[in-house]
Amino acid sequence: MNKDEEKKSIENLGEFGLIEHLTSTFTQELSKTVTGVGDDCAVIDRNENEYTLISKELFLENIHFDLMYVPLKQLGFKVVSASVSDIYAMNGAAEQILIGLGVSSRFPIEALEEFYEGVRNACAHYQVDLIGGDTSSSAKGLVVSVTAIGKVEKSSITYRKGGKPNDILLVSGDLGRPYLGLQILEREKSVFLSNPNIQPELSQFDTLVKKQLMPMARKDLVDLLKSLDLIPTSMIDISDGLSSEVLHLCKASKVGCVIYENKLPYHEDTQLMATDFQLSPLTCALHGGEEYELLLSVKPEDFDKIKGNPYFTPIGYFTSEDQGRYLCDTSESYHELKAQGWRHF
Amino acid sequence: MNKDEEKKSIENLGEFGLIEHLTSTFTQELSKTVTGVGDDCAVIDRNENEYTLISKELFLENIHFDLMYVPLKQLGFKVVSASVSDIYAMNGAAEQILIGLGVSSRFPIEALEEFYEGVRNACAHYQVDLIGGDTSSSAKGLVVSVTAIGKVEKSSITYRKGGKPNDILLVSGDLGRPYLGLQILEREKSVFLSNPNIQPELSQFDTLVKKQLMPMARKDLVDLLKSLDLIPTSMIDISDGLSSEVLHLCKASKVGCVIYENKLPYHEDTQLMATDFQLSPLTCALHGGEEYELLLSVKPEDFDKIKGNPYFTPIGYFTSEDQGRYLCDTSESYHELKAQGWRHF
Repeated sequence: MNKDEEKKSIENLGEFGLIEHLTSTFTQELSKTVTGVGDDCAVIDRNENEYTLISKELFLENIHFDLMYVPLKQLGFKVVSASVSDIYAMNGAAEQILIGLGVSSRFPIEALEEFYEGVRNACAHYQVDLIGGDTSSSAKGLVVSVTAIGKVEKSSITYRKGGKPNDILLVSGDLGRPYLGLQILEREKSVFLSNPNIQPELSQFDTLVKKQLMPMARKDLVDLLKSLDLIPTSMIDISDGLSSEVLHLCKASKVGCVIYENKLPYHEDTQLMATDFQLSPLTCALHGGEEYELLLSVKPEDFDKIKGNPYFTPIGYFTSEDQGRYLCDTSESYHELKAQGWRHF
Repeated sequence: MNKDEEKKSIENLGEFGLIEHLTSTFTQELSKTVTGVGDDCAVIDRNENEYTLISKELFLENIHFDLMYVPLKQLGFKVVSASVSDIYAMNGAAEQILIGLGVSSRFPIEALEEFYEGVRNACAHYQVDLIGGDTSSSAKGLVVSVTAIGKVEKSSITYRKGGKPNDILLVSGDLGRPYLGLQILEREKSVFLSNPNIQPELSQFDTLVKKQLMPMARKDLVDLLKSLDLIPTSMIDISDGLSSEVLHLCKASKVGCVIYENKLPYHEDTQLMATDFQLSPLTCALHGGEEYELLLSVKPEDFDKIKGNPYFTPIGYFTSEDQGRYLCDTSESYHELKAQGWRHF
């Protein structure tokens, strides 16, 4: 195998394939480890009634964020959102976070204070405690590593793997805004780089840009599901685009699915701005990501509990695995669902 | 304040000062959070009899390791050692780890497989489960983030803060070898860079180089302390050099100390090789680090339990805080103890 082929194969595996490949030979020895690699969080059994949930995320400058347009305060908020979102995706309550920071010497203390102000705001919003972490220098760029810890009642835990054929798929909030927010920020960056005298005017794009810079994880909806007495059969948060997340649920649950294009929820600004970028809202929804909304499935007999609820939109259902995974478009043509997501390789 | 002054202040704060500064205004809201920032691990109360311990470490290429001479397999082992060591330092048992990896596309899959083989060997050695993590690309260099999870009986937890005047200070193993191993590797790297035809001959330095590349965390000694029915009053692992760690214990415990130069334990190769590098073994011990040995204090009335034990060496004792923190050299002169450690800023 020559070098090019080797490099190509890591790109082809992508993030999920790679971690699966590398960890496939690991076994779990301790009875306390309930699940390891392969869900939003690791699950540990430390207590009679509750599981401990642990999620881990790494955020790297110029891969996951661009400090030319991401203010550090909003970055601090966002990394916490993204991390606690994994806890909510398992129907849990986030309780603590740890943050590891690698910073190059170009960052003044004031910049790090800004970052931690965002972290503090997020901790207050989600009611989690910052309980530790470490800081060191980095040779280049900012490195942020976040570990979130939470809990969930054993009877309420929701894995990716619990979906069954005929379960209804629902999504919270609306789709595509963070992706368009990113397009706007990238466009303004190009304009600024070509002429630094032109200051970006972003206020008219507020609803889109804010969703990109400061997404909110749906703690409120985990609480709402509880008050509806509804335990989803499977759940995941949307970080990599709807299609990628639907396929994760299908794969873990060993089911097929049908998603309806005309059911997908959009904000009116998404419809308007997508046209501006010559994109369809559908593309933004399927392959965008970073909404940190919840994608979940419920049993048909539970559907009445959530039907018509303004926070959730039914978008399709699970089928048996051999029926495949499809998107039904507005002209009722069926297309195989494929993931693009954020393939950083 | 001009830019130079700002940058200088971050360097002056150093790693420990910086994280303290940035997190000083965070409060712990949840009753379950026992301690946050400021010990080897965060401590969470989830269970009647045990605490959950969580440590987090970030390892960055060209800051914490140099892939010119660190084989990836040994790096995989070392990052696990360094992380579980924080759990042992609180007298706990490590149970799970999560690993986040940022890799640039220059790494072939085979290289990552090597890394994970080292991780797997370490998991087997320390009997911990790898339960999760994520992998993404990095713009430049290898980023490794490790979270370790463990437990400790509430009655046995050992903080940094529990030391009292007259407690005896002991250290496990010997000091200075990893630092000399690093000097050897750096020297061979320079030789190789100036003439790539000269292959480094490292086998004669095995005991030193191996301690640098593949340090062992002292799980065995936590088990030994238990069998001796001995709970230290304070404990820390040696990652940043003895002086830095002694000062951490003194600060947290609000005590002073005296350390005796002639009591510090060295391997015979440390004595030999230090001369070669025109260093004193004392300098290697005080300011080297990465031994991952344990530094602990015990009550005077407990000293008989550990006196003469071949795994631990008494090196001094705590005094009252106003008596200061001193090293007593071989000519019985007293020098104020100062930390250099690995200040990466």
